[in-house]
Amino acid sequence: MAYDSVKTPAGSREDALGGSATFFSVSGSYFAPVSVVAVVGEDFKDGDVKLLKNHGVDVSGLDRRPGKTFRWSGVYGAEDVNTRDTLDTQLNVFADFAPELSLEQRKSPYLFLANIAPELQMAVLEKMAERPRLVALDSMALWIDISAEALERIIRKVDVLFLDETEVRTFTKHSNLVEAARQIMAMGPSAVVAKRGDHGVLLFHGDSIFSAPAFPLEHVIDPTGAGDSFAGGFMGYLAATGDLTTEGFKFATMVGSVMGSYAVESFSLERTASLTKDEIESRFRALTDLTRFTSLGENESLPFQGGGAAHA
Amino acid sequence: MAYDSVKTPAGSREDALGGSATFFSVSGSYFAPVSVVAVVGEDFKDGDVKLLKNHGVDVSGLDRRPGKTFRWSGVYGAEDVNTRDTLDTQLNVFADFAPELSLEQRKSPYLFLANIAPELQMAVLEKMAERPRLVALDSMALWIDISAEALERIIRKVDVLFLDETEVRTFTKHSNLVEAARQIMAMGPSAVVAKRGDHGVLLFHGDSIFSAPAFPLEHVIDPTGAGDSFAGGFMGYLAATGDLTTEGFKFATMVGSVMGSYAVESFSLERTASLTKDEIESRFRALTDLTRFTSLGENESLPFQGGGAAHA
Repeated sequence: MAYDSVKTPAGSREDALGGSATFFSVSGSYFAPVSVVAVVGEDFKDGDVKLLKNHGVDVSGLDRRPGKTFRWSGVYGAEDVNTRDTLDTQLNVFADFAPELSLEQRKSPYLFLANIAPELQMAVLEKMAERPRLVALDSMALWIDISAEALERIIRKVDVLFLDETEVRTFTKHSNLVEAARQIMAMGPSAVVAKRGDHGVLLFHGDSIFSAPAFPLEHVIDPTGAGDSFAGGFMGYLAATGDLTTEGFKFATMVGSVMGSYAVESFSLERTASLTKDEIESRFRALTDLTRFTSLGENESLPFQGGGAAHA
Repeated sequence: MAYDSVKTPAGSREDALGGSATFFSVSGSYFAPVSVVAVVGEDFKDGDVKLLKNHGVDVSGLDRRPGKTFRWSGVYGAEDVNTRDTLDTQLNVFADFAPELSLEQRKSPYLFLANIAPELQMAVLEKMAERPRLVALDSMALWIDISAEALERIIRKVDVLFLDETEVRTFTKHSNLVEAARQIMAMGPSAVVAKRGDHGVLLFHGDSIFSAPAFPLEHVIDPTGAGDSFAGGFMGYLAATGDLTTEGFKFATMVGSVMGSYAVESFSLERTASLTKDEIESRFRALTDLTRFTSLGENESLPFQGGGAAHA
């Protein structure tokens, strides 16, 4: 959990509530019970804890420590809002974070390991009383650069890997995304979710590939938290339905995309934390409609020149 | 029409058959009769004319002039095959190109103005005996930079604009793609086709937005000609069916995406010129399947926590 100071083409915010665990928890809470493990400092506001509680998030695993909450500040590109520069990172209480899990948390059937050092992700997984039904992992370029081996060790133990498309390529050293995803799945995960910012998501699950569009937004305010909100919707849907088939993963990818699209429509969690069921569902239907068209029937053929036969 | 020398991560070719008109004509020829207007030099190979003829392309408008055929050479990025650097451009006979249209060509109901100087595109349009049923235009960053006013004049007169997504933004000076496309449609075109390389295509048609996925290729050999092959499939489908409704445009976008995906699987027109009906149709179905999943029924609801009501 974090306080973020961000500047985007749409404006700026100082010390606004952020952090992977925050976006994930609130997003996922629309669909399933969420229990969080995170560290905050003495400066973490009661109102922010209340916001989580109001969404039914179990905050008993919120570890409040002497010192300040993790802080990040960054600037998003004016030309391409998908690119950002980090101005400052202050680890603060996060520097000594040693995740502790309650007895109940150790039995969670669905586990999301948010983007932290892969060694800490492994420590959390090893604390589980039994192997969860589904373990998903998020990471980023930093860990590929400085902890590639530890990252590989934890990737071998999870079911779902969320990464930006470029990170999938960097991690595997494959320029081709299809080959790169196959290589990761050969290591263990049954699914790779390659995120493409405002170009959508490519889901690899077993032999299937699914392309989820991004919702075309007229007003992108702040991309911070989009990936974690995606993960929250994705895992929330799977936890709610228990459907771990390819169809379930496709549906989860669409739900995640909806939640990611709302996250970027405001600074901090302003939009994510104030959604209604109708808003989520109507965007879900609109997102589905984006790729719908009247395709060929089983016995129909494309209108080839020369009566249905290609002339080559 | 051109001879291209390209270098890609997959290899290289010297003086291989290329050019917008070439890729467009061969791609479109699978679906509808194509008549080409283009200039070539004395060095243009008989075999290359024959390739067009074998695809039923009417080459009577192929203007053979003293001098050499247009030549382009470039290198595609090893990290990101969507980016390319031009090494050399030799206009040759293209420098004095003044498109001439036959009486029959002047009556074509479907007109594609390939990527050349907007003044020449306007000259072709003005030569038409009557306003075609559908006029589509392709352009590129160069003309936005050096001929923005002439480009705007021709855009105001066409129905469909094909541009890379970044060019849509640059041309309109709108960073948001949805707003940018709306601005272009307010100028006249009923459709904007924003191309996103291997991330697919966003079609804006009236109030509708359609997201076509890109076919995830394992082996990208040479991106040259992908956009013109897309346009060929797109226009070929519309000319074959005459369906200018939103559904027709969506379908055309999918057909175009299929043809673009084949273009990049080989150097030059090796793949594009040797496709079978079965190959085109099976990839069309695979492309459709990429975005298909069992979505919500009309009376179904997302699995919200708390029995179908969001808790916010």
